[in-house]
Amino acid sequence: MVIIGCGFGGLEAARALERADVDITVVDRTNHHLFQPLLYQVATAGLSAPAIAAPVRHLFRRQANVTTLLGEVADIDPAARTVRLADGGTLPYDHLIVAAGATHSYFGRDDWARFAPGLKTLADAFEIRRRVLFAFEAAEKEEDPAARAAWLTFVVIGAGPTGVEMAGTLAEIARHTLPGEFRHIDPAGARILLLEGSPRVLQAMPEALSASAQKQLERLGVEVRTASRVTAIDEAGLEVQPPEGAAYRLPSRCVVWAAGVAASPLGRQLAAATGATADRAGRVQVEPDLSLPGHPEISVIGDLAAARSYLAGHEPRPVPGVSPAAKQMGRTAAANILRRLRGEATQPFRYRDYGNLATIGRNSAVVDLWTPWRRIEFSGWFAWVFWLFAHIYFLIGFRNRIVVLIDWASAYWSSQRYARVVTGIAPGTTDN
Amino acid sequence: MVIIGCGFGGLEAARALERADVDITVVDRTNHHLFQPLLYQVATAGLSAPAIAAPVRHLFRRQANVTTLLGEVADIDPAARTVRLADGGTLPYDHLIVAAGATHSYFGRDDWARFAPGLKTLADAFEIRRRVLFAFEAAEKEEDPAARAAWLTFVVIGAGPTGVEMAGTLAEIARHTLPGEFRHIDPAGARILLLEGSPRVLQAMPEALSASAQKQLERLGVEVRTASRVTAIDEAGLEVQPPEGAAYRLPSRCVVWAAGVAASPLGRQLAAATGATADRAGRVQVEPDLSLPGHPEISVIGDLAAARSYLAGHEPRPVPGVSPAAKQMGRTAAANILRRLRGEATQPFRYRDYGNLATIGRNSAVVDLWTPWRRIEFSGWFAWVFWLFAHIYFLIGFRNRIVVLIDWASAYWSSQRYARVVTGIAPGTTDN
Repeated sequence: MVIIGCGFGGLEAARALERADVDITVVDRTNHHLFQPLLYQVATAGLSAPAIAAPVRHLFRRQANVTTLLGEVADIDPAARTVRLADGGTLPYDHLIVAAGATHSYFGRDDWARFAPGLKTLADAFEIRRRVLFAFEAAEKEEDPAARAAWLTFVVIGAGPTGVEMAGTLAEIARHTLPGEFRHIDPAGARILLLEGSPRVLQAMPEALSASAQKQLERLGVEVRTASRVTAIDEAGLEVQPPEGAAYRLPSRCVVWAAGVAASPLGRQLAAATGATADRAGRVQVEPDLSLPGHPEISVIGDLAAARSYLAGHEPRPVPGVSPAAKQMGRTAAANILRRLRGEATQPFRYRDYGNLATIGRNSAVVDLWTPWRRIEFSGWFAWVFWLFAHIYFLIGFRNRIVVLIDWASAYWSSQRYARVVTGIAPGTTDN
Repeated sequence: MVIIGCGFGGLEAARALERADVDITVVDRTNHHLFQPLLYQVATAGLSAPAIAAPVRHLFRRQANVTTLLGEVADIDPAARTVRLADGGTLPYDHLIVAAGATHSYFGRDDWARFAPGLKTLADAFEIRRRVLFAFEAAEKEEDPAARAAWLTFVVIGAGPTGVEMAGTLAEIARHTLPGEFRHIDPAGARILLLEGSPRVLQAMPEALSASAQKQLERLGVEVRTASRVTAIDEAGLEVQPPEGAAYRLPSRCVVWAAGVAASPLGRQLAAATGATADRAGRVQVEPDLSLPGHPEISVIGDLAAARSYLAGHEPRPVPGVSPAAKQMGRTAAANILRRLRGEATQPFRYRDYGNLATIGRNSAVVDLWTPWRRIEFSGWFAWVFWLFAHIYFLIGFRNRIVVLIDWASAYWSSQRYARVVTGIAPGTTDN
């Protein structure tokens, strides 16, 4: 069998089949599994890339039934039951799990990508790190006050968990990391704006926690503008439509896109080839057991799946695009494949929601915990410690948790950021 | 005053002027000072980039007389006493220290750069890391035995310290890190070749240590070929002229260049503008006090300088292009500027040689120590421990020595390599 993608869903599916009598080929276009919840820390120079990424091949070294393949999937041929690779190779399969994930969506404005990079891969994180650090460098050299202000205006578009974390951390960098290192500018005077189209930040959270998160962001010096839609982005800034009144221009040389998510193009290709339905974001609608209609041998999981959660006596509920859901789908898809091999009926997917957490900056976070007994909401320092240990815990499988912990501990005490290093040369010259 | 370049020489010069009543602008084209002796560890996935690089700006945060500028120097105008930047800015100077360093030289065959990257910058290290790891991935996919063998043949050209360290570490990776992770190839069967034009490895070392280093390399499984000149390199391999007999072809898909060093192009530009002499490698011949003939206000130090060491009663001796020499030149240049400001005579540079050390792989190194009492040569495990602690010690100024130590300790015990992570996608497809 073949698993496409080694994110949370694909990794979990392969691991769940460890003792099964199957031959698994895991294909991924990068050589590493990425702990995406901490990717913003790489983008903001708090962690090095290897701290949150582990070689796929290494993760499966002791699982003899897994073969790892570095390669990009071009398309899937459900009739021939093969996966075709971009380099020309083909992989036949009897069962297929498609866990190719998602990328950012610019809602049809792909020309914005150049001015407002998103954050999905390590390469994205390095690009954002470069832009953030170079903006301060350029401001230090700039003599014109308006141009300097534009370099010192950082805009994050989209106030989901990633946007909130990015904005909070940018504020930390400006207020706590960089002051004292520049001679012509005061980094603490940098503006950090967080724009959100909907009426509140962290929409997936209860309203009280959204309000708390916004207050914590504002205490860090982030200007939060909700119900504000971005109508244009270019090299020198962006145009914003506020809830009332006329659109205004925001000069900024560093814009980060954390707004839209689109499924991998493989979703639409697969839907077209199997007669399945892809939703507006390109996600494939799956059966209750996560397989495709008419193709029980193909399962789609993670961010690529428009899946629903089934609990006896309740209406099916849509499953959110978060990593615990991807992991759970991976386990269910694997279990259903084993059931099919034994000739048993498959079972519908049930998503167990343990709640949400998001960090805002040093000492600040919001936690919405769903325990079997009651729902617990809390925020502030204790929520931050909870967030920290939850993330360290889920980095299991990476042998460098201790290193991450030390990096964080020392970043915490010194306000310094470990990974303020970018390759390439100065802006305004050609890169090499 | 202006200091161009923040490698070992520039950094040391600026620090030596900490209490002086001067305004210093340090210009560097990257945002970090690089601990180059460990760059091969980044290239071979043993360390992450931030472990050996620190932001220039951060290093000078408490030195109030230093302004850091990220920028590339286009040229120097000694008549106008200005440094012109690539982005159009100019920096006037009263004193100038040029410490722009060196890059690799392909001895006039710059077309080889594409097939055999050198190792001077973090970007170089990432490129080599990518090629090494992708070569094993490609071999795993390749079905043709000859093509597979070419992917599994790694060639390092040049057996100076960097070449020896690269070859030894590649052997470690093939023999100890990767086995067990592949299903179609045996990484331990990879060939690692070290080619050297001169008759022995580590030419700067005493002959006994060269012999010991070669024996240790061979024990690790490196094929050492001395007195062998490379006459051609292309995508599929290289052509080698052995000491006797006909040239032969060596199919290889991963070649690393560690052979030639050329001074920054700034050297020739400066020589032409001041009437100084540049040697064949582009290094500028300096006066005994490290200033330029007729231009006492300009000092050239580090790898850019063709300097000599002066000791009363001895013939002047050429100074090698190693980091202790760069640091010592930085201190001398700074001291001579202070002497000039006080109206005193400058003093000639004297290089204190404490010896050489090179590591070969886990447990293997050679040390040639020049103490005031006697010269000590040793090799093997104890030399390796000495090398390790010397390098940790000289990482001073980086707050992450503990992290480096932990990475190494865990790499040592597990044979694993922390940073086996590359960005970009699979070979054979376009990079993004």
